[in-house]
Amino acid sequence: MKAYVHVMLKDGVLDPQGKAIGQALHGLGFDEVGDVRAGKVIEIDLKDGTDKKRIEAMCEKLLANSVIENYRIEVA
Amino acid sequence: MKAYVHVMLKDGVLDPQGKAIGQALHGLGFDEVGDVRAGKVIEIDLKDGTDKKRIEAMCEKLLANSVIENYRIEVA
Repeated sequence: MKAYVHVMLKDGVLDPQGKAIGQALHGLGFDEVGDVRAGKVIEIDLKDGTDKKRIEAMCEKLLANSVIENYRIEVA
Repeated sequence: MKAYVHVMLKDGVLDPQGKAIGQALHGLGFDEVGDVRAGKVIEIDLKDGTDKKRIEAMCEKLLANSVIENYRIEVA
């Protein structure tokens, strides 16, 4: 099985990478672009039947910094 | 409207960040973890009705390096 962990900065946390991407898109003439936020996806191969609780534990311990980041787990 | 652009390294392209995450998870006792790949998500606020072709153009020009990266666009 595969788990996809999406890690995004929380709303209100300054995101300089997203800002830079937004400015670059404007510079290229994409005027329809508003706010841009950048985040990470981590794709993990797991033994079949792994409990979602285990994936949550990975997020809490390593993958996300829960002070400034939100995460979302998608299992496929 | 919002677009989510997922950018991942192509299969076969070495992913040291993913490898490091995988090793760290093993070190923490998550033995069910196999291969790990790391990628980016870019969340873009767009004017309603923006054509998907425009988002593809953003990916080709700036967001992804199509030599080594694949991208996937999700519109919400």
